[in-house]
Amino acid sequence: LEETGPVPPGGLDTPYASVDLDVVQANIADMQSYSDDRGLSLRPHIKTHKLAALARMQVDAGAVGVACQKLAEVEAMVAAGIEDILVCYPVWGPEKLIRLCGLARQVRIAVAADSLAVAEGLAAAANRHGVMVGFLVECDTGLQRTGVQTAEEAAALARRVHELPSLRFDGLMTYPTGPNTQAMLTAAKAAIEQAGLEVPSVSAGGTESARTTHESSVVTELRAGTYIYGDRACVANGSVPLERCALRVHATVVSCPTAGRAILDAGSKTLSSDHAEGRGVPGYGLILERPGAVIDELFEEHARVILPPEESPLTLGDVVTIVPNHACGTTNMQNHVIVHRSGNAIGWWPIAARGGVR
Amino acid sequence: LEETGPVPPGGLDTPYASVDLDVVQANIADMQSYSDDRGLSLRPHIKTHKLAALARMQVDAGAVGVACQKLAEVEAMVAAGIEDILVCYPVWGPEKLIRLCGLARQVRIAVAADSLAVAEGLAAAANRHGVMVGFLVECDTGLQRTGVQTAEEAAALARRVHELPSLRFDGLMTYPTGPNTQAMLTAAKAAIEQAGLEVPSVSAGGTESARTTHESSVVTELRAGTYIYGDRACVANGSVPLERCALRVHATVVSCPTAGRAILDAGSKTLSSDHAEGRGVPGYGLILERPGAVIDELFEEHARVILPPEESPLTLGDVVTIVPNHACGTTNMQNHVIVHRSGNAIGWWPIAARGGVR
Repeated sequence: LEETGPVPPGGLDTPYASVDLDVVQANIADMQSYSDDRGLSLRPHIKTHKLAALARMQVDAGAVGVACQKLAEVEAMVAAGIEDILVCYPVWGPEKLIRLCGLARQVRIAVAADSLAVAEGLAAAANRHGVMVGFLVECDTGLQRTGVQTAEEAAALARRVHELPSLRFDGLMTYPTGPNTQAMLTAAKAAIEQAGLEVPSVSAGGTESARTTHESSVVTELRAGTYIYGDRACVANGSVPLERCALRVHATVVSCPTAGRAILDAGSKTLSSDHAEGRGVPGYGLILERPGAVIDELFEEHARVILPPEESPLTLGDVVTIVPNHACGTTNMQNHVIVHRSGNAIGWWPIAARGGVR
Repeated sequence: LEETGPVPPGGLDTPYASVDLDVVQANIADMQSYSDDRGLSLRPHIKTHKLAALARMQVDAGAVGVACQKLAEVEAMVAAGIEDILVCYPVWGPEKLIRLCGLARQVRIAVAADSLAVAEGLAAAANRHGVMVGFLVECDTGLQRTGVQTAEEAAALARRVHELPSLRFDGLMTYPTGPNTQAMLTAAKAAIEQAGLEVPSVSAGGTESARTTHESSVVTELRAGTYIYGDRACVANGSVPLERCALRVHATVVSCPTAGRAILDAGSKTLSSDHAEGRGVPGYGLILERPGAVIDELFEEHARVILPPEESPLTLGDVVTIVPNHACGTTNMQNHVIVHRSGNAIGWWPIAARGGVR
């Protein structure tokens, strides 16, 4: 990377994270094309980048709005001028409900959740504050995280949401799109329609399955986050090719204690400890200059690189480029990213809503 | 926790991290007593807490100074008035050397590293800036991370360091203290003394082995970080009892999709993805109110809790207290911690040197 524009103090001193804006724009355009061609609404998840400028690019390209995972992200997006936001999280408790209602006064907001208790809390707060909040019933279609377990539960919750004041039943939501998604969402939609309600939106998500979303006859909205940057997990699961990975971490070799081992100055406090579990890729990131090497262990500020004999050695002072395992986790570790086009740094953008912010 | 003193906006809204100052002070006093009783210098590693106030407490209790893992931590410690700092990291590159020399003008600084190249870089910069910097030869005594591999290498590097201008040979450093530490450090010290040099300090580290440090006849200085907070890994390895774990994460149950599963609002962006590998403890933290439960999976903002049948259920809205797997990783996720005594919040302290800061 070359410093050709404004960079922060010590900007290109390692470790730092960079984003290739040309690649980002190609990724945005391609996913928007796919969605447009298939008649799907695209709602990018901004937890991957946490950047106002990229959210604006996504919406300007045709996205219907954005998805957020917590209120601090919503606040950053409202400040960025985004006007349609889905909070994919059960918003609960008086402090958060006050914040949510203040935001709902400014933009269109919906919340996805799986319980009547959360719906009732939202409705009471929205009613008190004189705002309308959308509600999507989250369905667990296989992840075993949040979400109602059956179509009947989904329909029962949808009916109650419909009856609550100041709540707008907006449809169904799930993450990720998997083998059981189509069956459960179809059944849930039918059960809700049988009760006389419309299901305006069926929102499914995840970059891995994004380009198969059209195969589902029930899904109307695609949520995806990681597609904008790609990462090593996406390369492994085939959803983003390596040359479309826009987020990279730059690190320096600070020790070469043995012939087959080198130490980089980017540890878990830079890359995150996220592994690419179940993807068949070992370790904590791909070193572009040494694709045969394995970052087999991360310490807080050190990465240990094991170089197989057929790979050329690393020398103290070498700067290497890492495609991280998980873009969202790596973003969350940075105060800012250096933004560039083809290696020419054009600025640095602070990351919003990090650091245990709710 | 009760809000009895200044807290940040939304201070006790979950998720947040808290530190029990009474427990912290007991942990500081006990490790200082141990070190004093055994004639060891104690040099706490501040990467665990990243807090000026706690570093000051550690030094006021008798620590000889602190250890840091990167320059941003050193800068925070110099600003806090700490006057003796060991950087346990190979400082490399022009930007970092300028910063280091600026700091060395203000306080006593030493760097631990394992190569002549790093020593020469330090010496050239220190000479140019008219400062003196200490240098400890890092020895790899079993971790296979950084460090020279043999006593002979240690002696050769010590001799070269001694000859370099503006560098002061301060001794030997290793992490962690393990079965091979005594043998290698003894051999390295002997080889250096045979070359006619003194070895002023032999610094070994790690909370797990801290209280066996006196069994080594060669170690003169104990570096430990996690002892101040404890964490689930420390409980598992027996170095800190559960009641001495001062850092906790407070989270709310936001979903109970099935009888045996609950979802908390603290994911990897709050707790970190650090596991307690090799400690025999599964998952991502201990829930004090449900010790039989397992946080079997972390997502970015969700923790999935599996409750065995014999454990009482969790209800939406319950607030639980988590002892994290790894205190240092959890600290690094927070913008601040809520500080309390016996549950009475007395303030909130911003965390320094986070967010990819070098």
